[in-house]
Amino acid sequence: MNTLIQPGTENLQRRKEILDFVESHEEFRDPIPPEFLTREDRVSNNARKAVAMTDLAEAIDGSDFFGEGIYYQNLIMGRDLHGMSLHYAMFFPTIQNQSDDEQLDEWLPLVVSRAIIGTYAQTELGHGTNLQKLETTATYDAATKEFVLNSPKITAAKWWPGGLGKTASHAIVMAQLYTQGKCHGPHPFFVQLRDLNTHMPMKGVRLGDIGPKLGINGSDNGFLLFDQYRIPRKNMFMRFSKVLEDGTYVAPKHSKLGFGAMVFVRSIMIKDQSMQLAAAATIAVRYSSVRRQGEPVPGKGEVQILDYQTQQYRLMPQVARAYAFMFAAYQTRDLYLKLTENLSTGNTELLPEIHIISSGLKSLVSWETAQGIEQCRLGCGGHGYSHASGLPEIYAYAVGGCTYEGENLVMLLQVARALVKVAEAVKQGNAKLAALTEYLGRRGNAKSSFSNINNAVPRELIHDFEHVAREQLFKAYHLLKKHQQSMSAEDAWNRCSVELAKASRLHVKLYLMKVFFQKIEEISDSTLSEPLNHLAQLYALDLISAAGHEFLRNGFYTDVQLDAVRDGIYVLLEKLRPNALALVDSFDLSDRELHSVLGRRDGHVYENMIKWAQQSQLNQQEVLPTFEKYFKPMMLNARAHI
Amino acid sequence: MNTLIQPGTENLQRRKEILDFVESHEEFRDPIPPEFLTREDRVSNNARKAVAMTDLAEAIDGSDFFGEGIYYQNLIMGRDLHGMSLHYAMFFPTIQNQSDDEQLDEWLPLVVSRAIIGTYAQTELGHGTNLQKLETTATYDAATKEFVLNSPKITAAKWWPGGLGKTASHAIVMAQLYTQGKCHGPHPFFVQLRDLNTHMPMKGVRLGDIGPKLGINGSDNGFLLFDQYRIPRKNMFMRFSKVLEDGTYVAPKHSKLGFGAMVFVRSIMIKDQSMQLAAAATIAVRYSSVRRQGEPVPGKGEVQILDYQTQQYRLMPQVARAYAFMFAAYQTRDLYLKLTENLSTGNTELLPEIHIISSGLKSLVSWETAQGIEQCRLGCGGHGYSHASGLPEIYAYAVGGCTYEGENLVMLLQVARALVKVAEAVKQGNAKLAALTEYLGRRGNAKSSFSNINNAVPRELIHDFEHVAREQLFKAYHLLKKHQQSMSAEDAWNRCSVELAKASRLHVKLYLMKVFFQKIEEISDSTLSEPLNHLAQLYALDLISAAGHEFLRNGFYTDVQLDAVRDGIYVLLEKLRPNALALVDSFDLSDRELHSVLGRRDGHVYENMIKWAQQSQLNQQEVLPTFEKYFKPMMLNARAHI
Repeated sequence: MNTLIQPGTENLQRRKEILDFVESHEEFRDPIPPEFLTREDRVSNNARKAVAMTDLAEAIDGSDFFGEGIYYQNLIMGRDLHGMSLHYAMFFPTIQNQSDDEQLDEWLPLVVSRAIIGTYAQTELGHGTNLQKLETTATYDAATKEFVLNSPKITAAKWWPGGLGKTASHAIVMAQLYTQGKCHGPHPFFVQLRDLNTHMPMKGVRLGDIGPKLGINGSDNGFLLFDQYRIPRKNMFMRFSKVLEDGTYVAPKHSKLGFGAMVFVRSIMIKDQSMQLAAAATIAVRYSSVRRQGEPVPGKGEVQILDYQTQQYRLMPQVARAYAFMFAAYQTRDLYLKLTENLSTGNTELLPEIHIISSGLKSLVSWETAQGIEQCRLGCGGHGYSHASGLPEIYAYAVGGCTYEGENLVMLLQVARALVKVAEAVKQGNAKLAALTEYLGRRGNAKSSFSNINNAVPRELIHDFEHVAREQLFKAYHLLKKHQQSMSAEDAWNRCSVELAKASRLHVKLYLMKVFFQKIEEISDSTLSEPLNHLAQLYALDLISAAGHEFLRNGFYTDVQLDAVRDGIYVLLEKLRPNALALVDSFDLSDRELHSVLGRRDGHVYENMIKWAQQSQLNQQEVLPTFEKYFKPMMLNARAHI
Repeated sequence: MNTLIQPGTENLQRRKEILDFVESHEEFRDPIPPEFLTREDRVSNNARKAVAMTDLAEAIDGSDFFGEGIYYQNLIMGRDLHGMSLHYAMFFPTIQNQSDDEQLDEWLPLVVSRAIIGTYAQTELGHGTNLQKLETTATYDAATKEFVLNSPKITAAKWWPGGLGKTASHAIVMAQLYTQGKCHGPHPFFVQLRDLNTHMPMKGVRLGDIGPKLGINGSDNGFLLFDQYRIPRKNMFMRFSKVLEDGTYVAPKHSKLGFGAMVFVRSIMIKDQSMQLAAAATIAVRYSSVRRQGEPVPGKGEVQILDYQTQQYRLMPQVARAYAFMFAAYQTRDLYLKLTENLSTGNTELLPEIHIISSGLKSLVSWETAQGIEQCRLGCGGHGYSHASGLPEIYAYAVGGCTYEGENLVMLLQVARALVKVAEAVKQGNAKLAALTEYLGRRGNAKSSFSNINNAVPRELIHDFEHVAREQLFKAYHLLKKHQQSMSAEDAWNRCSVELAKASRLHVKLYLMKVFFQKIEEISDSTLSEPLNHLAQLYALDLISAAGHEFLRNGFYTDVQLDAVRDGIYVLLEKLRPNALALVDSFDLSDRELHSVLGRRDGHVYENMIKWAQQSQLNQQEVLPTFEKYFKPMMLNARAHI
């Protein structure tokens, strides 16, 4: 089955080759599993591996970051980022995109050869989402032909950039550009932070690690403050905006080039999230086949916990989501490629739609991934709470995605802005709708024809969900119009924002459902298509059930139909039970990627739990010093007085 | 307002006294915040504090564990447990309840004086919920008058007990009792694990730490294996069952004494959970008043993020839940007291009802607490991901409650078993219903009379929720009966279990709603009652909205009524906005308890974020050894070749 999922046999083959490459290299081995290391040792171990990983990177096709690149990095680094993560993810591409030719000639070789290590410093202690309010300033001094970087307040401290704390020698710094007494808004600057020989911070630069986090503790996310720190004029990125020697500001021509990159980053993020959910689902489904508990029929022995309906109901929707999200990631990458092609010929038609869907997917997928992972973790009972399961780390890593690259609720409201424009155009009869929003201009049937899952066809389920997504959007739209009559546009927007966000979610869910059905239509082999069809149906019914009361509105569904949806879920869970393991095995996740004692492919869970635990730092001594120091005096004293 | 919440002015006064006591004692100070410590140092620091805490325990009223006891421990230990947690929570009470007089005389002084440190070893690597299948054996050898403890398989390893890994010298061990060739099921034994002088494990005892976990890493949860380890006959707890010298087994008389203790433990757990949610809500609401982001009206400056409807919608229901759960905890404690009184006169009438509600509350409260904490954490954006917020630790600590003391889904199905019995009795017309299930025997109106929140009264909202909870129970009941006609009772039960669990949840939610309204009726001061009334209404509407399609079923609600519920939520959010800070301040949580830079009472968040971060272990050296070791050679090599 997994030829479909990791598309192309070649790719599966490559996965195997890359895995073998990584496993055969001593450099990539951890001395003990990272969860037993102190933070310092973890950061150090990651530095070692990151250097080796980039030393040996010729083993992979670096141009295929969506495919080989992420895979290679995940195999080596696990769910820890490392000091050089942003060097590749942000520093490198920004230099490529924002430098003028002269800058490129000077900087690119340094970056490619790793003569310097860079990061990307944008977010500040007091400012994240609203970039326009960043407080770091870069003031041009025409006398010396320098920019003076300064952090006027504590809230201006750069905060969060990966590798900034201890690793990076350089950073791209976003700062408010001031020249000739005028502010021109945030611009990027190329800034040296540390001496190349001693690695000590440059004078005027104060920086450090921001401390422990929920996850990714092998990364030294950092803070950064400038005290009147001077950099040459030429360190402002000059490809678009410019500041001339005399301080004259030259504004950029409007450019949408950066937009494609954002879509690409999101397609990567969605794929990454889907793989985290796939990993959690694999662990939980496998463990639920190993774990036996409860004896429904006395004397017949304990049953696999995956036989319980409640456990299936907990886990199988997560398996379905992992597939849905992965398919959406591939689709988003394809949209990106199409967009890039179009943009190169000046065609911006696809932009608005892709903007909507990539923002919306980022938000919905990261949230449901986090939720799904927690369900998988809780489904493993007590052992899910142990790092032996791998699940606490998977959760901690994945849930960050709800916040970075655009806070989820802010994203949903951006989507809503765009959808409201579509609604407006539809109302005014001048909508020019492309594929993803086309349904908003249509009318469907006033009643659903759904009867039960046995004769449900995708077209029908999609039709029904379109109806509900459309109704919610227009409901929110009319509410907005109503409020606008009695208050400011801003207040009206705020007062509808929960309803607007709900409209965005339904739009994205509809897209996910459509893509899922569409992808499995491409499968000709019926041994594959049947279980995947059931999974897609489960996904669809789960979405419908969760939006149950929207379906009942205006009698679109009857009570009987909604009951049939829930019954359908239970029927599908039974049908999927025999294929549950095969469905997760098809994600083709190696034990190395899963990093979970519970999720081992060979099922030898219990004996390996003990082996794993023996590596605990507390077990390196039979008697801890705490006994002599604290407990023994207490106990002796008590015995003396009894 | 907080005289109501921490009931009685005296109590508030005592909170202050205990806080002052703790803060004035150097022994209770952490050298650096625990989140910066390695696991070994954290365990050691906790050992130090635990000894000091018990040394100085005369400062509190130890008999009031629900009130002063938890509070004192939380102030000192934070959200870490410690090696002696189970000594007090399980070892001590079990010895009190299960020992015969002779045993009590021998063991109690050792426990009280802390001459020994005990834990409670029940759960095994392969067995949690289903105690009957524990694999550890205790086989009586009449020749030597000893029990032989043995772990026949790896899955028999005791796994999870707090303090078992490195701290405990003794444990109460649950093992299958074998005597005269017959198994009598799990029984408790008093077992010495380590030598009292050297603290080395006794011969035949193998034990250690189980490794790092999602949370409570300051505790050495442990594993334990026996290899034919002999203990004297008298080390079997003899109060109820006995094994005579010749090996004759004497069965216990039926006793429900243990039941009251379980209700008490649950009341404590519910209170603890509610306080964790209260802490998270306090942090998030305070930070949302400090944090400014976005400028809806250009030039008017950035607004507090708490002004956004989406943020209010995220946080205020958590504030409401924290109150609801706290009130339920008080109510459960009162039920426990009443139950104890009744049981002392042989009156067991309240037992079934209290069993239902305490199991159900444990499950629902712990799940919604965890969910709510995550919403609070996500509502703090990037900073919520940092341990500076305190929120990752609060989540990790609280979410454990979904699993320990009875896995949540298993609990819900226990509740369902009891509810199905009630439904059966109602159907057969012979139900004898007490207060908590009385509504199941009633019929309400076929249509709700709810119109909008301005004229909604609690009685009406409760009536409506009763209707829906009742309908769901009977729906599940009828489904069960239907399935029972075509399959075994076990399969039928399994096939309805998702619907049954749903019925349990609605029963518990109804209880929470009722208790909330009832508690605020007791308030006479209108400055208090108004905001709390709005909060209770928000709680109720949120519950109704979440069960929206159940309300629409059979036309009980119309679409218009359900819209009015959602509108009501938005109206209440606006009404609550001015009191949001006061409502969380009323939880009376000190900065020491919150342990959060974001949640500081003084609002000085940003400067303290930097101060906090400077304590990071990575910041103790300006240049980490990793630079010289890994990065410098790489960078120098690159420079040499450019």
